[in-house]
Amino acid sequence: MANPVLVETWRGGAVESFHRGALAVVDGDGAVVATLGDIDRPVFPRSAIKVLQALPLVESGAAERYALTDEELALACASHNGEPAHVHTAAAMLAKAGLDDSVLECGTHWPNHDVASRALAAAGATPGPLHNNCSGKHAGFVCLGCLLAGAQDHRAFLAGYVRPGHPVMREVGAAIEAATGCDLAHAPLGTDGCSIPTYGIALRQLALGFARVASGIGLSPGRAAAATRLRRAVASAPFMVGGTGRFDTRVMQALGERVCCKVGAEGMYCAALPEAGLGVAIKVDDGNNSRACEVVMATLIEALVPLHTDSQRQLLASLADVTLFNWRGLQVGRLAAHASLRELVGPRHRANRAMV
Amino acid sequence: MANPVLVETWRGGAVESFHRGALAVVDGDGAVVATLGDIDRPVFPRSAIKVLQALPLVESGAAERYALTDEELALACASHNGEPAHVHTAAAMLAKAGLDDSVLECGTHWPNHDVASRALAAAGATPGPLHNNCSGKHAGFVCLGCLLAGAQDHRAFLAGYVRPGHPVMREVGAAIEAATGCDLAHAPLGTDGCSIPTYGIALRQLALGFARVASGIGLSPGRAAAATRLRRAVASAPFMVGGTGRFDTRVMQALGERVCCKVGAEGMYCAALPEAGLGVAIKVDDGNNSRACEVVMATLIEALVPLHTDSQRQLLASLADVTLFNWRGLQVGRLAAHASLRELVGPRHRANRAMV
Repeated sequence: MANPVLVETWRGGAVESFHRGALAVVDGDGAVVATLGDIDRPVFPRSAIKVLQALPLVESGAAERYALTDEELALACASHNGEPAHVHTAAAMLAKAGLDDSVLECGTHWPNHDVASRALAAAGATPGPLHNNCSGKHAGFVCLGCLLAGAQDHRAFLAGYVRPGHPVMREVGAAIEAATGCDLAHAPLGTDGCSIPTYGIALRQLALGFARVASGIGLSPGRAAAATRLRRAVASAPFMVGGTGRFDTRVMQALGERVCCKVGAEGMYCAALPEAGLGVAIKVDDGNNSRACEVVMATLIEALVPLHTDSQRQLLASLADVTLFNWRGLQVGRLAAHASLRELVGPRHRANRAMV
Repeated sequence: MANPVLVETWRGGAVESFHRGALAVVDGDGAVVATLGDIDRPVFPRSAIKVLQALPLVESGAAERYALTDEELALACASHNGEPAHVHTAAAMLAKAGLDDSVLECGTHWPNHDVASRALAAAGATPGPLHNNCSGKHAGFVCLGCLLAGAQDHRAFLAGYVRPGHPVMREVGAAIEAATGCDLAHAPLGTDGCSIPTYGIALRQLALGFARVASGIGLSPGRAAAATRLRRAVASAPFMVGGTGRFDTRVMQALGERVCCKVGAEGMYCAALPEAGLGVAIKVDDGNNSRACEVVMATLIEALVPLHTDSQRQLLASLADVTLFNWRGLQVGRLAAHASLRELVGPRHRANRAMV
């Protein structure tokens, strides 16, 4: 059976396109608080679980050994724009471990942020692995690897750190398993854009993982403390998680520690909501994350997080019901939650929206 | 009821994302040769019908008056990359009408082609309306408008040429109605990215319009001749229709006049197949055109157009079953037609594919 429509794109007075998908909102005990669509089919969470993948960096003591700052820990949880601040921060993390970008195995692409990309070109430069949107996560892996290497040669130990069997990836996998309860040995396995493994995990389990990050329930004390440390780092340096204009950055700049959300490729979104002790996981079937997922996440935040100020309410309303303009600045349409999603989120969403 | 899945994205051994949609293959008499999903719901065809929108440019005599070349007529049917050749050709069309880019009402954006965009930035330049992917279509509108203006001041006559009631848009609308049989006065109306009207038209009618372009059946002799002229122009200058790396350009470079295909925004694709006298119209529900539509169109071309050479078969196979690589060049997955589409297209598709 097809998943329900979550988001519609309107042009003039007609629906032009629409996005189907599924979502799960789960508490720390695994109780499903809200759900739409199939939440038991395994999906590749991609970059939406970078917070889970960064847990060993903190829990192992590597973050402490290399004196990683909030900015650097936030960058370890980021899919960043490749703006200068992101690039410099990733380089600083590697320098603290006594290494440079030649150790990175994430690959190279032009900065995701068009302005940053054109600025690089205008300077006559070309991108390196530090511009890869995952360079901070990989710099975190390198720091973790240096700790695990002990007395061994760090570069030699790190070679192939992206492979599923490497000690770094085994630590990362163990953290994912502990948070989500998913047995990765029996999960579908794919290779992510930055070459690390990505495992097929049900939305129900991903939401549980984020409820545990939000609440600490079900995590060992060390992992729970690491989750709190990462949430605080991200909240204090939200620019590092995305960058100029990015949804995650804008939402966390406005809401601080009250929301810890993260986009992933191919229509994935996850969030920890600490006040309510809830975790959220979303997958849009068609893989659209730049518009569909954001509308779903904004709508859920409006419903699940009390918004205290007009500017918070206005920001979330503008992200949940997006006005579309064309190249001459004419208003041509909008993106908005479909009735199925509006129905699900109910009264608090309507109350917040009514106050805008 | 949900439209069927047309295309799947695979990562490792699992389906990561999938695209639903509908398609119609129709002959010049309106008989439906093949169909999947709902082909009677109105959809905005966007830029997929630029060939129809360019018919009045030729039929009116404007193309002849301004001695437009094949390259220029192809650019009038284009969603181009904004590469230097596209920009220069659009400027040349305007110059032939005694005007410049200040008359264009399409708006401005950076070139769609990343390399062209960065090259512009590296040269210290910024884009103008000629870089807009629709600038050739608009330059064609300007040429048509200058003819319609007669003795009136051309600039004054052209002001607001993008509005539905302007004489230029009335001519364009009449051509769309004649080709598709759709009564635009009662169709959903939206504003396109380049500010001209876009009308909601059923896939069945859009496919009929392209079958008429393919065969001339049902068109006045003047419109049929204009359709033939445009198909030949596009086939002789396929770089102008898209540009470096673009699906339409690559397919028409390989197949010449045997396929006249055109992408549109939001998951639209149309094609005229002159040998079989067929028209094709595709809409992917979620609006994805950069991967989903192309796989559907390539699969239909494999099935409907006899491929005579190994290079033709290899090109279409590579576009219908796309290998996906990550930033390090590792093979991570593929895009391919879903069983529902493979089943529809049947034996000839399998025969072409078996020869690859």
